[in-house]
Amino acid sequence: MSLPDRALARLDSLSIEVPSWAYGNSGTRFRVFSTPGTPRTVQEKIADAAQVHAFTGLAPSVALHIPWDTTDDYAALARFAGDLGLALGTVNSNTFQDEAYKFGSLASLDAGVRRKAIDHHFECLDVMDATGSRDLKIWLADGTNYPGQSDMRRRQDHLAQSLREIYDRLGAQQRMVLEYKFFEPSFYHMDVPDWGTSYAHVSALGERALVCLDTGHHAPGTNIEFIVAQLLRLGKLGSFDFNSRFYADDDLIVGAADPFQLFRIIVEVVRGGGLDPAGGVALMLDQCHNVEDKIPGQIRSVLNVQEMVARALLIDSDALVAAQEANDVLGANAVFMDAFYTDVRPMLAAYREDRGLPADPMAAFAASGYLGTIADERVGGTQAGWGA
Amino acid sequence: MSLPDRALARLDSLSIEVPSWAYGNSGTRFRVFSTPGTPRTVQEKIADAAQVHAFTGLAPSVALHIPWDTTDDYAALARFAGDLGLALGTVNSNTFQDEAYKFGSLASLDAGVRRKAIDHHFECLDVMDATGSRDLKIWLADGTNYPGQSDMRRRQDHLAQSLREIYDRLGAQQRMVLEYKFFEPSFYHMDVPDWGTSYAHVSALGERALVCLDTGHHAPGTNIEFIVAQLLRLGKLGSFDFNSRFYADDDLIVGAADPFQLFRIIVEVVRGGGLDPAGGVALMLDQCHNVEDKIPGQIRSVLNVQEMVARALLIDSDALVAAQEANDVLGANAVFMDAFYTDVRPMLAAYREDRGLPADPMAAFAASGYLGTIADERVGGTQAGWGA
Amino acid sequence: MSLPDRALARLDSLSIEVPSWAYGNSGTRFRVFSTPGTPRTVQEKIADAAQVHAFTGLAPSVALHIPWDTTDDYAALARFAGDLGLALGTVNSNTFQDEAYKFGSLASLDAGVRRKAIDHHFECLDVMDATGSRDLKIWLADGTNYPGQSDMRRRQDHLAQSLREIYDRLGAQQRMVLEYKFFEPSFYHMDVPDWGTSYAHVSALGERALVCLDTGHHAPGTNIEFIVAQLLRLGKLGSFDFNSRFYADDDLIVGAADPFQLFRIIVEVVRGGGLDPAGGVALMLDQCHNVEDKIPGQIRSVLNVQEMVARALLIDSDALVAAQEANDVLGANAVFMDAFYTDVRPMLAAYREDRGLPADPMAAFAASGYLGTIADERVGGTQAGWGA
Amino acid sequence: MSLPDRALARLDSLSIEVPSWAYGNSGTRFRVFSTPGTPRTVQEKIADAAQVHAFTGLAPSVALHIPWDTTDDYAALARFAGDLGLALGTVNSNTFQDEAYKFGSLASLDAGVRRKAIDHHFECLDVMDATGSRDLKIWLADGTNYPGQSDMRRRQDHLAQSLREIYDRLGAQQRMVLEYKFFEPSFYHMDVPDWGTSYAHVSALGERALVCLDTGHHAPGTNIEFIVAQLLRLGKLGSFDFNSRFYADDDLIVGAADPFQLFRIIVEVVRGGGLDPAGGVALMLDQCHNVEDKIPGQIRSVLNVQEMVARALLIDSDALVAAQEANDVLGANAVFMDAFYTDVRPMLAAYREDRGLPADPMAAFAASGYLGTIADERVGGTQAGWGA
Repeated sequence: MSLPDRALARLDSLSIEVPSWAYGNSGTRFRVFSTPGTPRTVQEKIADAAQVHAFTGLAPSVALHIPWDTTDDYAALARFAGDLGLALGTVNSNTFQDEAYKFGSLASLDAGVRRKAIDHHFECLDVMDATGSRDLKIWLADGTNYPGQSDMRRRQDHLAQSLREIYDRLGAQQRMVLEYKFFEPSFYHMDVPDWGTSYAHVSALGERALVCLDTGHHAPGTNIEFIVAQLLRLGKLGSFDFNSRFYADDDLIVGAADPFQLFRIIVEVVRGGGLDPAGGVALMLDQCHNVEDKIPGQIRSVLNVQEMVARALLIDSDALVAAQEANDVLGANAVFMDAFYTDVRPMLAAYREDRGLPADPMAAFAASGYLGTIADERVGGTQAGWGA
Repeated sequence: MSLPDRALARLDSLSIEVPSWAYGNSGTRFRVFSTPGTPRTVQEKIADAAQVHAFTGLAPSVALHIPWDTTDDYAALARFAGDLGLALGTVNSNTFQDEAYKFGSLASLDAGVRRKAIDHHFECLDVMDATGSRDLKIWLADGTNYPGQSDMRRRQDHLAQSLREIYDRLGAQQRMVLEYKFFEPSFYHMDVPDWGTSYAHVSALGERALVCLDTGHHAPGTNIEFIVAQLLRLGKLGSFDFNSRFYADDDLIVGAADPFQLFRIIVEVVRGGGLDPAGGVALMLDQCHNVEDKIPGQIRSVLNVQEMVARALLIDSDALVAAQEANDVLGANAVFMDAFYTDVRPMLAAYREDRGLPADPMAAFAASGYLGTIADERVGGTQAGWGA
Repeated sequence: MSLPDRALARLDSLSIEVPSWAYGNSGTRFRVFSTPGTPRTVQEKIADAAQVHAFTGLAPSVALHIPWDTTDDYAALARFAGDLGLALGTVNSNTFQDEAYKFGSLASLDAGVRRKAIDHHFECLDVMDATGSRDLKIWLADGTNYPGQSDMRRRQDHLAQSLREIYDRLGAQQRMVLEYKFFEPSFYHMDVPDWGTSYAHVSALGERALVCLDTGHHAPGTNIEFIVAQLLRLGKLGSFDFNSRFYADDDLIVGAADPFQLFRIIVEVVRGGGLDPAGGVALMLDQCHNVEDKIPGQIRSVLNVQEMVARALLIDSDALVAAQEANDVLGANAVFMDAFYTDVRPMLAAYREDRGLPADPMAAFAASGYLGTIADERVGGTQAGWGA
Repeated sequence: MSLPDRALARLDSLSIEVPSWAYGNSGTRFRVFSTPGTPRTVQEKIADAAQVHAFTGLAPSVALHIPWDTTDDYAALARFAGDLGLALGTVNSNTFQDEAYKFGSLASLDAGVRRKAIDHHFECLDVMDATGSRDLKIWLADGTNYPGQSDMRRRQDHLAQSLREIYDRLGAQQRMVLEYKFFEPSFYHMDVPDWGTSYAHVSALGERALVCLDTGHHAPGTNIEFIVAQLLRLGKLGSFDFNSRFYADDDLIVGAADPFQLFRIIVEVVRGGGLDPAGGVALMLDQCHNVEDKIPGQIRSVLNVQEMVARALLIDSDALVAAQEANDVLGANAVFMDAFYTDVRPMLAAYREDRGLPADPMAAFAASGYLGTIADERVGGTQAGWGA
């Protein structure tokens, strides 16, 4: 069995953005364990990201996080990445690690704090101008821990105003994506807790404001693929942060916790045109490799996405529609499951070899000795951490 | 301690709509237990509803459910209600109990089924014309049980079109409220699962389309008061279906499961102008009294809402704002909790007596002997059931 | 690729018990939709169950529910089943549909109600004596809807005493399995809400009292395979009720909602000896086919279990242990996922043909015309319903 | 209204243990914000804890965490505490912050790691011998992030063996309490995820092994008061870790998120004899004051517990039992709610003044100027952090 031609074309256009911070150490509030060879600079992070692309052909761009990836010369950084075959992608702002943001940033009741946070986003736009990045991604830790602590309603108005200021500074080719999150680090309310809130804000802003959907940022039981379908229908899905979870925002490897959910999500992405380059949906990873090796963790992740895209492309759409219209519940479900249960791995191995890539990227990377090399070389300095 | 004047004025304008179906039997898929005295006709339901208002002064209108409350002459029914001191309120459509709706109604893939469902809503509008009701409430059971069973995306488009047809038939004084629900009776996807979906649809329709928020229709852990604040801010909160829950759509007495959550919700209602008569937010009950007596259950419910409104009105807003702006977390929370922990029951007893109502409506109703009377009188016939 | 010999032996011993009630109509509190050909008698239910076994070879026994399946002569019923190639299996008691049980049964505060409920279980034991069934399965709807409604602590003592009386009447070859459930139909507390409670009771009773694990009866996010592993370790896993869920006790087809979860559960079953005939773990289905055809729904279900067992048997245990002991997180996970992602369907088709069964039982059953036949023949009478 | 005599006696015996780590900084994986005056030594932590007791009379003992509170001379530390009016209480082990424990501790597959973790507990027992502490509390971060990563079943056996070794070293007056947690920091499985697992282990160990119930360590929707009732009934409730949560293990101030839940829990504690000094149930706090001041946060917390105990003691037990036995659902619930809604704060203010304590401990502490003093004095050194 092999992949049909239209599937091949879609697979060829698949690209997944990896985040620079995935290569640093991460952990929980209880402990961050360190790993030999962890990058100490943004350049070392990009070098690691380049490995993911080299072995998979799937990850041609890397997202930055400001100020974690602050550097003096972003144009030089873009050239550095380019020399490694990578583009610099989405720029992520950070308004949760400065002492000033203890009680919020863009939604704070304090005008001075909001000013500082807005200015930080202007700085991010400057970085984007230098790197040629298209998307500014805003995820806010803003919220409260106790009922009454702040004024949820007024904060929405502040937030709307702050976003407006930032939006108005976007260049003509630039976009803003607003991420939502159910909870954490705030434990009573988040100022952007759900897709509805993000959608209401970006709708008010304009065409270049879109929603970012992180697959780990929902209440238990949420039907995520429905949200994907809805946002694509509304023309407001800007990007994904892929990861997986059993409980909360676990940030595990995408597809690791519930592969069938990933399949259903990808099916709606394909269904809604989200894989079309013109569709403008950025597929990103946002994960924490707390106990596993980071580079192989990222390789595994982009492969998981690729495999699910292949499965989704195998759905017999004509048979599916016919069964759906006939209210043949078991028949329609069977068409759907047939694609999911097909083992696409041999096909993809062949597909990779056809394109000069290793059939088994995990094995090939392991054989490369790269992890040993960086463990030897990267001695001294301060390991980058998730959040550092 | 007594209620401040502004609180009294707000309390005087508080009115809660009770649903006709609350007086019939209800239960779970496992069993519907019957109760002596259960109404057998819509007139008997309205008579029971009139008791709630007589003893509390809080429930001057009753919502109908079509076809459960179908009658030949709605104008006569309105007069019947009027003679008992009640108005007929919201009309609820029903597209979940006809065999035709097994696979959906307004969102069905089948044009004939959608036609039937739209026509049913036209019939409801006719009822509203006859009763003078303002609101048409649409709750849809539409959805699927299995991945692949239907086309979620296409169903949204069908739903939008169906709603458009209904909206265009609304009279100038009429409104449509679209309710959302997380799950049940569909167990994989619901076509209107969350406030975001309801908001996207009613925003597309126009000013007289609004969201109905049922407090039991959310994912576990959802911050409902945030949604209340957001919808009021967006001008799109049309009505509440009050009830409470520990697990799913348990439909318990409002305030019974988490009184502090009810307090927080009411605080945002007050904060957002939702108690102003001009605000147009309808406060309704939607509960199932599976194991408790129905009329006392409804009396308990409207009293619970009244008590929480009184507590919310006791918040020292100046102190709260001052503490919030000072980032005094514990101080702001303390102002908030002080109102919640105040025992408003003595004040409300005095308030009722001032208005010629029994200080203790529960005791007064029990002493009235009404339950015994209807148990004796309502023999024979078919007891109305939730869903019948 | 084909199944290894040890896998074949395990697969040959796989048997799944189907419940008589799966063939009747079922639904939600909102609506029970009817289906042509639905059985009207226990004999017709057994005839339908026989179809599942005939086409799959996997379902040689059928569970009864008393009083839904009450008959005058259980020995005759057993012979009837035997003539169709089936044995009568687990007997399920019912203490949730009689008016007397409105406020509980074995855990009721009312001694008379407890007596009635205990006696009902004695009646079930009499049925078991007649049918030769091994297991008495007890699932209790007992619980409350409101805090304070009853005395949770005292009810536990009553429950313990009631179970003791029943346990003491078990024959030497008979067992009791006690099922737990998170919620529904009670919405504040259930008297047996979790495995810990069931375990505490059966541990106190003795060796022939065991836990029944229904895969839909847990809180959101619960790691069910851990409970499976734990109960097997403790020697207290008596039986499964298989089904699947997205939200609550949805009772969907096993494996439909989260196939990877089913895989993980089966892995622990295999790991803990639960497939060994000597292990005494009964694998049962307990599902509601609300919108899909019932017999094909059951066939799909037993096939889903069989496929997952095959996948679980493909795990390279030596490689897995080696990776686990080396703390090779990605390596161990890869061994695990490799089995899950293997497409076992061709192997199983061959396996079936080797045993004189249709390679594709779903297609073969559809081609048999049985559904048309029963739709024509079963006219008049009262369709059996879930709960009737 | 005043408190009845029996309530006074119970209140007089109420004591709540505070944890040393509550006075250090804490936060999330995203950020730990610092606070002026944060302790830098265990002595400073104890000095802060002494403030809580001085202003409330409720917190006469402080729990230690080893190695966070390691000192050269525990007898001297006990004297230091004694001079401030405090006893040293529960000793908490820590097996989650050493690099060796990355993949587990007492449940690890690695015998050397288990040895190290067991030896650490022996060290804790030595501390207990020196301080006179009764309880060794074991909370384990052990678990995995990915299916297949380790062998859940085998880890249970290792855990049982490790606990056995520790249990056998307990002195005659010493106890072990085993805490369970639903998830975090492990995101696929925890080795002690639920009360059933903890109960199974401590039952196997012996009488001096008991369960520790942290109120934030359950799946969403879990009925915690049921578990309290069950464990008290089984004689296996050793201690509480009080805190509150909206989502996960949020570690907010006890009673802040769902005060009615705290009421229900306390009712079962009272009901089951958990407040009797002979009952041996230790009431502890375990919270993180991420955004609020720590000492006032602890004062607020012990007051919240005291207030709820007072409310629970106000329940009219005779009326409650009568209503329960009559199946008077609304009546029983009303008795229950009457106690909850009673404003006990004036009574408790009087109660405190009778005992020479400030009527309003929060205000009195604020007026004391202590926070300003420590902010001035504690300059330099390293602030203690949660986890440091």
